[in-house]
Amino acid sequence: MATAGKVIKCKAAVAWEAGKPLSIEEVEVAPPQAMEVRVKILYTALCHTDVYFWEAKGQTPVFPRILGHEPEVLYYFLSFDVLSIVESVGEGVTELAPGDHVLPVFTGECKECDHCKSEESNMCDLLRINVDRGVMIGDGKSRFTIKGKPIFHFVGTSTFSEYTVIHVGCLAKINPEAPLDKVCILSCGFSTGFGATVNVAKPKKGQTVAIFGLGAVGLAAMEGARLSGASRIIGVDLNPAKFEQAKKFGCTDFVNPKDHSKPVHEVLIEMTNGGLDRAVECTGNINAMISCFECVHDGWGVAVLVGVPTKDDVFKTHPMNFLNEKTLKGTFFGNYKPRTDLPNVVELYMKKELELEKFITHSVPFSEINTAFDLMLKGESLRCVMRMDE
Amino acid sequence: MATAGKVIKCKAAVAWEAGKPLSIEEVEVAPPQAMEVRVKILYTALCHTDVYFWEAKGQTPVFPRILGHEPEVLYYFLSFDVLSIVESVGEGVTELAPGDHVLPVFTGECKECDHCKSEESNMCDLLRINVDRGVMIGDGKSRFTIKGKPIFHFVGTSTFSEYTVIHVGCLAKINPEAPLDKVCILSCGFSTGFGATVNVAKPKKGQTVAIFGLGAVGLAAMEGARLSGASRIIGVDLNPAKFEQAKKFGCTDFVNPKDHSKPVHEVLIEMTNGGLDRAVECTGNINAMISCFECVHDGWGVAVLVGVPTKDDVFKTHPMNFLNEKTLKGTFFGNYKPRTDLPNVVELYMKKELELEKFITHSVPFSEINTAFDLMLKGESLRCVMRMDE
Repeated sequence: MATAGKVIKCKAAVAWEAGKPLSIEEVEVAPPQAMEVRVKILYTALCHTDVYFWEAKGQTPVFPRILGHEPEVLYYFLSFDVLSIVESVGEGVTELAPGDHVLPVFTGECKECDHCKSEESNMCDLLRINVDRGVMIGDGKSRFTIKGKPIFHFVGTSTFSEYTVIHVGCLAKINPEAPLDKVCILSCGFSTGFGATVNVAKPKKGQTVAIFGLGAVGLAAMEGARLSGASRIIGVDLNPAKFEQAKKFGCTDFVNPKDHSKPVHEVLIEMTNGGLDRAVECTGNINAMISCFECVHDGWGVAVLVGVPTKDDVFKTHPMNFLNEKTLKGTFFGNYKPRTDLPNVVELYMKKELELEKFITHSVPFSEINTAFDLMLKGESLRCVMRMDE
Repeated sequence: MATAGKVIKCKAAVAWEAGKPLSIEEVEVAPPQAMEVRVKILYTALCHTDVYFWEAKGQTPVFPRILGHEPEVLYYFLSFDVLSIVESVGEGVTELAPGDHVLPVFTGECKECDHCKSEESNMCDLLRINVDRGVMIGDGKSRFTIKGKPIFHFVGTSTFSEYTVIHVGCLAKINPEAPLDKVCILSCGFSTGFGATVNVAKPKKGQTVAIFGLGAVGLAAMEGARLSGASRIIGVDLNPAKFEQAKKFGCTDFVNPKDHSKPVHEVLIEMTNGGLDRAVECTGNINAMISCFECVHDGWGVAVLVGVPTKDDVFKTHPMNFLNEKTLKGTFFGNYKPRTDLPNVVELYMKKELELEKFITHSVPFSEINTAFDLMLKGESLRCVMRMDE
């Protein structure tokens, strides 16, 4: 392209300091260096992650940066769900070429470390999510500037910009025929929840599954249970309004812990003749995590933790639960290896096995980003997709 | 046989009350009722299990009974490792006939409950170990009497007697050509440890494995790691004398927590470039359990709990360990279904894949049972096999 090798000026939403609203600025985006790719963002979908996630990992404030947080409301806004198109590639990048459709992912896959070589892990040593790092790993510098002043990156993607530079290991090349405004939601929340069920909990046909937390991640986990042929899917949430929506995702029963005087795991065990076959926790609340494990059946029950705890949380249980053959696992990004596995998830959608449309409740132009924030904060949207060039 | 349908008088070791030595008495053993089998014990091997096991399950003292405990030393003596021959069978027993060689197991397999029907569980609802029950489940009565006074059974086997009556679901029929004085050790500790590794931890060829506790169960777990092709097997024990013996079972490194000022899991993580691929806990000590989980590698590490905790123990960890893709499991009897799986373990020995001889360090006649107890208490024996008719 004509822009290859040159600095691109474009618009980006910049967080100048903690707690202040993002402001749309003109930024300069430098060309990609070795093993980097510059992409043009086409679609992005808001995703909210509890601030405690980052605290648990030990966050250091790095400002100004593209993509901010709002500590007053205890939420980070992360445009993790993104679809982009390759504008140009840096030295050493052979897998991607200008024009390719790619999903930028907040965690990567270098294909060379022990984790990438292991069939069992997706926690790449080189490109694992790092919220403290605001620069590219190749040279320790940012590719963003405003009037020459560096602006930090965020979790390797910084997608609240029309153009961004990303390590090739954080980009999954997908089928160019896939509808961009649908598959953009595969790069974060959907894959996290869906993968937690189909890759980790692995319910067998006819088994019972409980899902704790019926936000977008929990509903994606539920979609995994539905597609696995679960006979009964019990949704657990403090908000009774969530049940109606959850029915579209296969929810057969709803339990609101507030409606019961006994612990919710006891309620669930009574409902299921001894416990659930599988349970997936998508809230990050430590008590929900403990209930998620306690409610699974002895002998074969598997509980999977997805929701991110606070740094001071302690998981407690009696060890006899393990000797009674309950299994406790957790997952990061649904155990998907971004580059290897996401293209296959896109193909599942292309084969009409996944119903991504159910997750996309709103659509706004990028200029109305604050509307998208409001919808997310009020809990009114599952995924609000934004088209960047509007 | 001539004794079928009649009461058999024979010798048994009876515990008259808690804390008192066993006394050898002449007992009457009634014929087997429906779904029961009367067997003649040929070989038995002492097995010690921490008293806390039973406390964790909520024990009620049931005396007098055949098989006792010695609370002063905090050990139960359980002759779980046994080989017997069928003397006669009760109504409805079609799988077994007089003369069959059987391994009596402290837990059973009814083949009809949800657990038995599940591929994933061996925790039979009907015949799962129950230390409080001193009678047969069919009619709620004992088959043992002394001068007409009932003597209670213990964990469904009560094998400290020349003859005993056992539910057919607790008997594994094995190859009659298997050497009795070797395969008798398969009915408890060996299978528990070996199964924990090969059925639950499932190390892949070339992986690293840590075993906490180098008693008979730990060494059986180690044998499982060796046969799985582990590249490195680290034994962890407070007694340095255990290392020499453990080398025969494949132990490549030894760590004594007492030799280090830092927590043992930190030592293990440093030794293995980030953590063990698999770890198996065979002590029942809660701190060892926690270390066993902490020491496994993120992304793919699997920790398996085998040792039995006390009833007040609490397993604690930060939930991020699960989100970092460490798995925590536990096992009961190595996940073996007694009737379905034990015959296959015997065949592994017949094919010379298992080296059971390494576990049998002593052999005494039944009349010298107190010698066997002393060897066990002093930690000098792994398995001491007793021939009942000597």
